[in-house]
Amino acid sequence: MPIVTFLPGGIACEVEAGTGLQDAARTCGAMIPFPCACKGACGKCLVKALRGRLDFSDNGKLSADLRRQGFVLACRSLVTEDVDVLIPSSVGGEAGQFSDALSRMDVDEALFPRAADIKPLASCRKIAVAPAEPLDGLGDYDRLSRAVKGQPHAGAIDMPLDLLQRLPDTLRENGGAVFVWQADADGVSRVVDITSEAPGADYGVAIDIGTTTVALQLVDIQRAMVMDTLTLYNAQIDRGADIISRITYAKNRDRIQEMRGLVLSTINSGIAELCSRNGGIRADEIRNITVAGNTTMLHLLMGIRPEYIRLEPYTPAVMKPPLYRASALGMDVNPNALVWIAPNVGSYVGGDITAGMLCTDFAKGSEEVCLFIDIGTNGEIVLGNGDFLMGCACSAGPAFEGGGIERGMRASAGAIERVEVDPESGECRSFVIGGGAPKGICGSGLISLMAQLLGAGIIDQRGKLDRSGRYAPVTVVGKTARYMMTPSAAGDVGVYLTEHDIDNFIRAKAAIFSACVTLLKSVGMGFDAIDKFYIAGGFGRYIDIDDAQTLGLLPCLASEKFLYIGNSSLAGAFMALVSERHREKILELASKVTYVDLSSEAGYMDEYVAAMFLPHTDMSMFRGKGSGVRSC
Amino acid sequence: MPIVTFLPGGIACEVEAGTGLQDAARTCGAMIPFPCACKGACGKCLVKALRGRLDFSDNGKLSADLRRQGFVLACRSLVTEDVDVLIPSSVGGEAGQFSDALSRMDVDEALFPRAADIKPLASCRKIAVAPAEPLDGLGDYDRLSRAVKGQPHAGAIDMPLDLLQRLPDTLRENGGAVFVWQADADGVSRVVDITSEAPGADYGVAIDIGTTTVALQLVDIQRAMVMDTLTLYNAQIDRGADIISRITYAKNRDRIQEMRGLVLSTINSGIAELCSRNGGIRADEIRNITVAGNTTMLHLLMGIRPEYIRLEPYTPAVMKPPLYRASALGMDVNPNALVWIAPNVGSYVGGDITAGMLCTDFAKGSEEVCLFIDIGTNGEIVLGNGDFLMGCACSAGPAFEGGGIERGMRASAGAIERVEVDPESGECRSFVIGGGAPKGICGSGLISLMAQLLGAGIIDQRGKLDRSGRYAPVTVVGKTARYMMTPSAAGDVGVYLTEHDIDNFIRAKAAIFSACVTLLKSVGMGFDAIDKFYIAGGFGRYIDIDDAQTLGLLPCLASEKFLYIGNSSLAGAFMALVSERHREKILELASKVTYVDLSSEAGYMDEYVAAMFLPHTDMSMFRGKGSGVRSC
Repeated sequence: MPIVTFLPGGIACEVEAGTGLQDAARTCGAMIPFPCACKGACGKCLVKALRGRLDFSDNGKLSADLRRQGFVLACRSLVTEDVDVLIPSSVGGEAGQFSDALSRMDVDEALFPRAADIKPLASCRKIAVAPAEPLDGLGDYDRLSRAVKGQPHAGAIDMPLDLLQRLPDTLRENGGAVFVWQADADGVSRVVDITSEAPGADYGVAIDIGTTTVALQLVDIQRAMVMDTLTLYNAQIDRGADIISRITYAKNRDRIQEMRGLVLSTINSGIAELCSRNGGIRADEIRNITVAGNTTMLHLLMGIRPEYIRLEPYTPAVMKPPLYRASALGMDVNPNALVWIAPNVGSYVGGDITAGMLCTDFAKGSEEVCLFIDIGTNGEIVLGNGDFLMGCACSAGPAFEGGGIERGMRASAGAIERVEVDPESGECRSFVIGGGAPKGICGSGLISLMAQLLGAGIIDQRGKLDRSGRYAPVTVVGKTARYMMTPSAAGDVGVYLTEHDIDNFIRAKAAIFSACVTLLKSVGMGFDAIDKFYIAGGFGRYIDIDDAQTLGLLPCLASEKFLYIGNSSLAGAFMALVSERHREKILELASKVTYVDLSSEAGYMDEYVAAMFLPHTDMSMFRGKGSGVRSC
Repeated sequence: MPIVTFLPGGIACEVEAGTGLQDAARTCGAMIPFPCACKGACGKCLVKALRGRLDFSDNGKLSADLRRQGFVLACRSLVTEDVDVLIPSSVGGEAGQFSDALSRMDVDEALFPRAADIKPLASCRKIAVAPAEPLDGLGDYDRLSRAVKGQPHAGAIDMPLDLLQRLPDTLRENGGAVFVWQADADGVSRVVDITSEAPGADYGVAIDIGTTTVALQLVDIQRAMVMDTLTLYNAQIDRGADIISRITYAKNRDRIQEMRGLVLSTINSGIAELCSRNGGIRADEIRNITVAGNTTMLHLLMGIRPEYIRLEPYTPAVMKPPLYRASALGMDVNPNALVWIAPNVGSYVGGDITAGMLCTDFAKGSEEVCLFIDIGTNGEIVLGNGDFLMGCACSAGPAFEGGGIERGMRASAGAIERVEVDPESGECRSFVIGGGAPKGICGSGLISLMAQLLGAGIIDQRGKLDRSGRYAPVTVVGKTARYMMTPSAAGDVGVYLTEHDIDNFIRAKAAIFSACVTLLKSVGMGFDAIDKFYIAGGFGRYIDIDDAQTLGLLPCLASEKFLYIGNSSLAGAFMALVSERHREKILELASKVTYVDLSSEAGYMDEYVAAMFLPHTDMSMFRGKGSGVRSC
């Protein structure tokens, strides 16, 4: 009979040939989400055969794009031969609205936790606590301590009072056989939970706190399986679009607590939603949490004044946050759950980057030189290999997230995410997330549009629109020219791009490109030294490499050197959630990163100014022939 | 110029001959309470010259009793020669109402902490945290951790989130010079507070939780000085007079939380009162707490089900409670203060006894055999010397605290504490705490009365009153005879003692005496082996040894072998509060005590029945001639 092995958990079982994959998963205990109860209607039970094949009968619910990537629907697949089946991050939830869905597919699977790695911070063990004996001088707590530490003269364990209160009954309910969630770290044994009944599952939540969005994954830890992913807007958004505005806003104790409360409200509503839509998981069944985020977001989560991050000498309060209980941090899960927060390495290279590095070859320590860039409101860059790691950040501004662009918006429903511009008429055809009428343009749409306009010669190398009247969509309002993507009508100004918007875009791409150049130069390297160029970030999946190179946002490297790793911060938080080896790896990588302050690097400003052209003043870097021509 | 040394703190300074002691204390920085601002009116600034003399001009405010014990009033004393001045536990507050005031005077002063011992659990150190350097990869927390642990690659420290939140500002306020309260225990460095300003004083609170009363001491830790003592009724009293009733009441989760809330309300109102009447000390200036109490009281304080204490095999949930923060336990002091709770050694030999042992020669480990008995609702007994320690408990019942006695009351204002019975008429003259009309009789009054009645032949050896009509105060109501201490009048039944009361008293004294005999026999000893007989407990100070021997409550030993140590549990909590050596000593002593379950000891019941006579069926133990004669 064929053997099915479900990955990344590695659970295997033998089934009759011809068994439906949903039945095989049930037999194995592997959890695949079937939101439509296997009616083949929702197209969300995606899996991928890695070794061997599945007998898949398509019913048209699977997109061509996903088919090309090797995905099939589990509910319409039969097992006919030995097969390894990868269950990817769930594509339920906010698919199509935020770009983190399916974001992991360019991550080298060898980097993911293997079955042998699975060890969350608080791991469950069944322990036989010795029965009480008359006059042996041992209380319940002493006997538990010995059993937990496994030696007779154990030191104290860190056990929250509510667990101590429950201990006498719990020990007696099942003759001393108890299940203990215990985390050993920093020389302390912390108890997270004690139950007398065998736990049904071992849930955890991985969280990425971005400046704009908060992404959460509900994880079945023992199966290293993402059960569900949810992305929400960070409720702090109204208090500033970028990091510096948030820091400025959080200027006093009340404001800091307000900001903390806002991000906690986002996190807690996300956790509640994940629990509710996954069979009513109870919050106290979530006993592990990992968090990644930029330095400022992590400070605000902990209610720590972020101001010193942006004041000389740019010293965060915390690089590696200590372990706190969820109740102390204010997260609505098991109150005794420990929250593991990814380490920062500098003011603007935070836990989102150290966690994200788990998705890159940095985690392998190989000789190949990699450049890893996470593009969001800030651009955060790490360069290096097994021998050295340099990190820096630049302020890209919010253009790639739709900010600072008059008709810009985030990559959610109604956003133009790609355009095609007719080089003759200059008219544009736009592709809108979720279909329907466009409401605005998001970062990937902006890149697409800019590249098309440059290619058609509708803008020049300095980003000025052609005002000759040759292109109907170009109009001039006051002193500023604008390009109309949709016509304005009564009550609707239309979607358009102004020369101010273009300037903002150019500044953003110049900041990122020049940061990469400067970081490379600081170690005597050029782009030719790079073997792998990782692109992470909320919009990473939608960037067209050709377009980005045309604009001088990305350097001229062979396209196969570019790897999309999507929300690598969330993926790293997931890996840290399930695997001790990966937590240790983050700490090791973080300790190796040398933080570079670009503003104090000689030459950075020159590089920045040089990059303020499309694609660049130094055309030799792009081997192209100037404006309007595919440059690489 | 004469040198004054203030004890127990050991602070010394030189002053002009003729300096008033209050000025000398101010010069030295020793704190003596002067509630009436040195007007000589309140009589509360008691001190005692231990070596050398003070020039004291009495103004009649000092009682003859206190003068006899060597006390003088500090406000009316001049320094004329070198002198060691002991500042005892304050007698302010509830003096005269509860018996713990001045309770320490029979404790060997060599057992008290010396200046060199002073080390509270959370000790304050001034630390120079290295300034932030650009790009050194260190956050504020990292630099603090290194400074706290004193080594570059320190492990994590346990720092509550609110301190981490305050850290960035605190570090910058004073150039990195901060005062850190830090407790190193069980291999963990716990931070209790961080301030940038030098602390004014270092306050702590020592707490004894008794079944009936809760006693608290506010302590100036660095001076090892008790600033004030306060005794309050344990608010749990209405839920049962003795331990077993409390355990029975606390039968479910709600009741346990109710009981916890009640004792916390007592503790917190006591702390608030102590803070308020001592110059408005802020609760957050109290950074150390020690607690002693019987096993059940400690369980209820922590909200742990006490039921298993009284069910076979009599296993408390906790012997040595782990360290909890005050906020977790619910105590209104600095929320991060650590609460050190004295270890239990068995179901009915608790932290009150292990703490109390610090007041006995057990703490010296000498060869002399000592018997230590703490008489409250339970009688708790420890026997041993440097080679062995045996502990047991017996249920004395509440008679010694006024319970189970129709007109019984606790040793507070209005209680008869001593009587003189005219052997001819049988009429009695009573001495009332606080003067005025008697409201009832307390434990010490009961012993005094019983001894007088037995001595006059008004009761016989079985505790029966003489109904012959010879003694006017003896009347018969129904089937029961009673002895009237005060006449009944319209609207006042008077204060009297019934034969039922006498039975209860006899059972109580029999329980205690037979427990002592049984414990001694279990190691092949008799009373003659005892070198020191320590008596502790709420009423201990008022027991008349002769009376107690007359009644067979105490054995026939030379009176100098008896030592009153009053509320030794509170005194032990005080010592543990200020001295690490004393905390370690308690743990060492607790680990050495072998707990004996009297109910399973062969012969205990026989001993009990034999002790149900006055003084005892075996008169040879009392070398006396029977009823009515001084027995020893």
